[in-house]
Amino acid sequence: MSRLFDPIFGTTAVAAATGDRAWLGALCEAEAALARACARAGVIDLPTALEIGAAGAELAGGDVGALGRGAVAGGNPVIPLVALLRERVRAQAGDHAAAAVHTGATSQDVLDTAMMLLAHRALAVVIAELDGCAAATASLAREHRNTAMAGRTLLQQAVPTTFGALAAVWGAGLDRAVAGLNAVRAELPVQLGGAAGTLATLHPHGLDVLTAFADELALAVPSGVWHTERGVVHQLAGALGTAAASVAKVAGDVVLLAQTELGELSEAASGGSSSMAHKHNPIAAVTARAAALQAPGLVATLLAAGAPELQRGAGPWHAEWPALTALLRAAGGAASRLRVCLTGLRVDEAAMARNLNGLTARTGDVDTGHAGELVDRYLAGRPS
Amino acid sequence: MSRLFDPIFGTTAVAAATGDRAWLGALCEAEAALARACARAGVIDLPTALEIGAAGAELAGGDVGALGRGAVAGGNPVIPLVALLRERVRAQAGDHAAAAVHTGATSQDVLDTAMMLLAHRALAVVIAELDGCAAATASLAREHRNTAMAGRTLLQQAVPTTFGALAAVWGAGLDRAVAGLNAVRAELPVQLGGAAGTLATLHPHGLDVLTAFADELALAVPSGVWHTERGVVHQLAGALGTAAASVAKVAGDVVLLAQTELGELSEAASGGSSSMAHKHNPIAAVTARAAALQAPGLVATLLAAGAPELQRGAGPWHAEWPALTALLRAAGGAASRLRVCLTGLRVDEAAMARNLNGLTARTGDVDTGHAGELVDRYLAGRPS
Amino acid sequence: MSRLFDPIFGTTAVAAATGDRAWLGALCEAEAALARACARAGVIDLPTALEIGAAGAELAGGDVGALGRGAVAGGNPVIPLVALLRERVRAQAGDHAAAAVHTGATSQDVLDTAMMLLAHRALAVVIAELDGCAAATASLAREHRNTAMAGRTLLQQAVPTTFGALAAVWGAGLDRAVAGLNAVRAELPVQLGGAAGTLATLHPHGLDVLTAFADELALAVPSGVWHTERGVVHQLAGALGTAAASVAKVAGDVVLLAQTELGELSEAASGGSSSMAHKHNPIAAVTARAAALQAPGLVATLLAAGAPELQRGAGPWHAEWPALTALLRAAGGAASRLRVCLTGLRVDEAAMARNLNGLTARTGDVDTGHAGELVDRYLAGRPS
Amino acid sequence: MSRLFDPIFGTTAVAAATGDRAWLGALCEAEAALARACARAGVIDLPTALEIGAAGAELAGGDVGALGRGAVAGGNPVIPLVALLRERVRAQAGDHAAAAVHTGATSQDVLDTAMMLLAHRALAVVIAELDGCAAATASLAREHRNTAMAGRTLLQQAVPTTFGALAAVWGAGLDRAVAGLNAVRAELPVQLGGAAGTLATLHPHGLDVLTAFADELALAVPSGVWHTERGVVHQLAGALGTAAASVAKVAGDVVLLAQTELGELSEAASGGSSSMAHKHNPIAAVTARAAALQAPGLVATLLAAGAPELQRGAGPWHAEWPALTALLRAAGGAASRLRVCLTGLRVDEAAMARNLNGLTARTGDVDTGHAGELVDRYLAGRPS
Repeated sequence: MSRLFDPIFGTTAVAAATGDRAWLGALCEAEAALARACARAGVIDLPTALEIGAAGAELAGGDVGALGRGAVAGGNPVIPLVALLRERVRAQAGDHAAAAVHTGATSQDVLDTAMMLLAHRALAVVIAELDGCAAATASLAREHRNTAMAGRTLLQQAVPTTFGALAAVWGAGLDRAVAGLNAVRAELPVQLGGAAGTLATLHPHGLDVLTAFADELALAVPSGVWHTERGVVHQLAGALGTAAASVAKVAGDVVLLAQTELGELSEAASGGSSSMAHKHNPIAAVTARAAALQAPGLVATLLAAGAPELQRGAGPWHAEWPALTALLRAAGGAASRLRVCLTGLRVDEAAMARNLNGLTARTGDVDTGHAGELVDRYLAGRPS
Repeated sequence: MSRLFDPIFGTTAVAAATGDRAWLGALCEAEAALARACARAGVIDLPTALEIGAAGAELAGGDVGALGRGAVAGGNPVIPLVALLRERVRAQAGDHAAAAVHTGATSQDVLDTAMMLLAHRALAVVIAELDGCAAATASLAREHRNTAMAGRTLLQQAVPTTFGALAAVWGAGLDRAVAGLNAVRAELPVQLGGAAGTLATLHPHGLDVLTAFADELALAVPSGVWHTERGVVHQLAGALGTAAASVAKVAGDVVLLAQTELGELSEAASGGSSSMAHKHNPIAAVTARAAALQAPGLVATLLAAGAPELQRGAGPWHAEWPALTALLRAAGGAASRLRVCLTGLRVDEAAMARNLNGLTARTGDVDTGHAGELVDRYLAGRPS
Repeated sequence: MSRLFDPIFGTTAVAAATGDRAWLGALCEAEAALARACARAGVIDLPTALEIGAAGAELAGGDVGALGRGAVAGGNPVIPLVALLRERVRAQAGDHAAAAVHTGATSQDVLDTAMMLLAHRALAVVIAELDGCAAATASLAREHRNTAMAGRTLLQQAVPTTFGALAAVWGAGLDRAVAGLNAVRAELPVQLGGAAGTLATLHPHGLDVLTAFADELALAVPSGVWHTERGVVHQLAGALGTAAASVAKVAGDVVLLAQTELGELSEAASGGSSSMAHKHNPIAAVTARAAALQAPGLVATLLAAGAPELQRGAGPWHAEWPALTALLRAAGGAASRLRVCLTGLRVDEAAMARNLNGLTARTGDVDTGHAGELVDRYLAGRPS
Repeated sequence: MSRLFDPIFGTTAVAAATGDRAWLGALCEAEAALARACARAGVIDLPTALEIGAAGAELAGGDVGALGRGAVAGGNPVIPLVALLRERVRAQAGDHAAAAVHTGATSQDVLDTAMMLLAHRALAVVIAELDGCAAATASLAREHRNTAMAGRTLLQQAVPTTFGALAAVWGAGLDRAVAGLNAVRAELPVQLGGAAGTLATLHPHGLDVLTAFADELALAVPSGVWHTERGVVHQLAGALGTAAASVAKVAGDVVLLAQTELGELSEAASGGSSSMAHKHNPIAAVTARAAALQAPGLVATLLAAGAPELQRGAGPWHAEWPALTALLRAAGGAASRLRVCLTGLRVDEAAMARNLNGLTARTGDVDTGHAGELVDRYLAGRPS
């Protein structure tokens, strides 16, 4: 989180869903949902579960910094959070109730579940931003179905195409990214395994609690304990990396087509430089690219941390927290900036025609082939 | 390709499917299939298409090095290949037939299609190797459903679990990797767009040729032209990265459990060092890890090359060829080495019991909770 | 910045030197130093320069969030900062003085210079933490020069060595990392090029201002304008990546030697888990590894952003800000956590002897060769 | 190695220095030099050492594939190579001489030393190619010291500059890359530690042999045993990554300035596409970019493998071989392609003037400031 830089990279869009407060809230919700799940399975009683939920709701608004400092000794924030929860529940409902806090769980159960909850919510924002980009792109494709322009390969003018056909290419990538994120999002599971992944202290109710836990949070029931099987995280990372690339593609093309010498596109609010009023900097596209550039390295980090040791990773697991948070922010920020770029994007048809004329004057070729049909096909194939 | 190192990293398994000869073969097949597709759409005549196919089949066995040298001027091997094809078809069937070679296509159409064909075949090997790993893991889980061992978190003995439960975690990751690769594999499309993605020279038959082209190669029909929309490549990269991580997880655990002081696992053919006969190096696991370690960086490379410019990338597209080839090899090699590791893996139940006894002596805890049920659940959920 | 997670990953050590406030402060200092440099070259008058410095000092404590929001339109925080500076100077000293703000500079001049200033200071912390690690390691090497232990290759017991020899290996890496960071740090330059890197508006005083600018900030005079020649950033990234790896090596070894079955090392404040009091989790080492794991991907990000376009990058430049900040934090955090790990690290010589006895019983080999001399050599070669 | 793709990516330049044959040769030379070093220290007799050298020289031309297959069991090619060497020396000089093969060494000693030898030689090629690029760039800077052109920031025309000033920026990056590689190259050390890094079997001559070993191969004497302290590899990786970025910068700018609408630069042998004769594809620049794009991910791989376990890594060490080989090839190939691009690069001064006129018509600004002096400064600061 950076209040100085986040707005530039669009991260503000997804900041509330990925910040410290969102993490703490998700941790508290996970503890509360676990308690309710235990109650549904008859492991603890319902009033106690509700007491735990109430305590969690209060702590969710508490001192994040203190929790962070308290997390150093054990290496994760769940340990001090559970201590605070127990203390608060004890004060309200006595020792017996306090003992019911965190029933059957290990820190990783709560942290992984919270991470999935946080990802689930952050993805909603990322997807909404991408959907906004995709809708704007579809409009461009529709509107410019027949707007002829020079096709450029290796950045050399090649043969004619249409701006609609290019927008259809952009849109196909954005739609694919949305579909990929939706698919991953629908499968984000809770985590519950206990100290070494056997659900031992919940036996014989462990699998019932697991199912109820997922139901309480509207997350998926995992096929097993995934403390050290991180495929879910890798698939999420891959989908976010793909999404960031889909943004980078569009933003890069806008930057190229906005070049002074081409002048085919310009952003509605092109940033002038104070000293050079004649410039029309496509700032939203530029910063979308910058945000998207963070993604490949972060995906590599998550994959490289992908083999946590035996029953709990000694570093690789912890490494996921900052990397996944940063990746959600990068993808969401990139999409947010691109949405700004595409909203009101100015298409200079005259410039397109002028540049194309230069090409056709040399080649005589004016054929845009199936460009229009490709636009129709793209539009027809879009998710409604 | 390295004849010196490939065997060590298991790359030999997937070498034939990813080597120069496989690439050249796929390029020739793509040209032949395109010709047949054009014939089906009535754009060229069938005898000419078959002549092109025959010429391609001959060239597939030709001089790879010459083709590579000939590719420098234009920056891709399709340009000299088309020249050779035309020459050969001309000699057999005259100028008219020669002109039918590469009808409607740009180099990238043929290269992208060949890359998908190559990936389709290489993935078959990668998946087969992973399936072998998964089957061996399932056997271990079944056989050791009740073999108690010390669960270790942060590499500290924690509470009891079973080796079956650990194998179920391994297996869940491997099964997920296979499912992910199968899903991506089923969607690998042909590419056909012509010079700037409008299918102009095939108009009005372009979309018919596209459909027939996919049918000829048993690849998917793309939703549009993806010259510069590389989501397919990114999803493939993500799935391969996930697969490599699933291998690294298992291999890493084998290395840890094979440590002299633990002695719980050993490979059937543990490599002794010539000078230290007492060692039981888990070489297959070690080299599986080494192969898998290549993957995250290669995934990042493919994502970083993910925004090719306008109608054809000026570098990012070309960058995919070595990176994707290397990634297929890394994943396939890692899986191949892990399969060796898991085949005949020796489980020393006495050592597991001995280590566990040390733990239970300190804690009194002998409860393996739902470990057995988690194994059952894993086995029941496996793809048949 | 995360108040929840930063303490866990040791980032607090370097947080003050890399946070929003540090960035804002560095930006203001760069503007102030530029003004003084202009005054020294006779381009503006000294009282005005001092007025600008005073205004900058006030703004350094101002509203970071507002500046961030104001940065969106132009894509960098220097634009709104200059506006605020001008406004404040105008109020104090009139229009003429206000016009002297930011003389001759483009946004990138100030931002790049601030980034170097920030890196210079943050590196002091990173280096101090690494030095602390290196000193602790040297003590361990000295103290355990002759403490025999089992050498382990591929995690198999191989032949005897000493803990001192292992500590010497650790220390060599840490010392190398420090030397590398010091070398890079000494060369961090100011940036000054003006709108397109020609120092046009400062002509004919541009090179004089450049020299004075560097002198004012005690940074290096660059050989030219490096707006789009980012070798300095890449060398810094490489040195930080090397440093993180040197930390990861030591932390990883501590985690391995702290395994229950080996028991050769333990941290002074091993984190117990609340539910498993028998565990001695080497939490500082675990979290050092987690912090260090962030580095390779961030280095890749900075290198991938390494080719900004023509006279100013359209995204690659901006992408450096979050990535370099995160990399400084990751390296500093990793070093900080490792320092905690090494401070008071408990060496269980009895355990080392016991494990070694198991090996020598099988092999008869008790020879530690040149281990002691290698320790001496390492200690003798250390920077004083 | 790919005979199909290597020529495209310029890898042929560095192929002979990094191929299987180079690796095998380096391994044999390392064994021979070790034997001579042992003889110099009086550990073995000189005739035996020379016999070993002769046998190595023969094996260097032997069957790489057989060695690779023989390397699988032990996980590295030194094990079967030593067996072959012993067999051959035994046949020539008897059992006593055969026993002297590989005296005091572990496989990693020979492999690491060979890797440094290979890197030393491959770097000579990489540096020569970069030097060629740098010389061509210096010529461009000199020749076009006063060739005015439009400066472009965020790809928008901004203010005037000169092509010489841009070339000076390019050249500064290339010169820096060369200096960095030269510095790393001069420090590449031999490796000698024996089974667990204590030089035990050479005691008390170990350090003498180490010094003689380095002398024999004209490599550096390491400060200690670096089996698991891989800073040398990381520094090499960083320098190669920096070099690749310096190439990518220049190549990217050429691609941009070669755009049809700008037309300011073109390659001497611009690749036409067969179907579009009007195109002037800057193929050398395009493929230089593609080669350079491989580097960041490979650097990340080497850093991520940067913490090998205890006395020998169980995977991370092995992972370096393909990654470093690929990185040397990527950097060398990128430099080689860029050299082709820059050799005979056509500068269209009229186009530069035309584009600049468009800018000055809008702004009235014709000032190129210190551009000429910056060129002079760059040229004066170049290594002679």
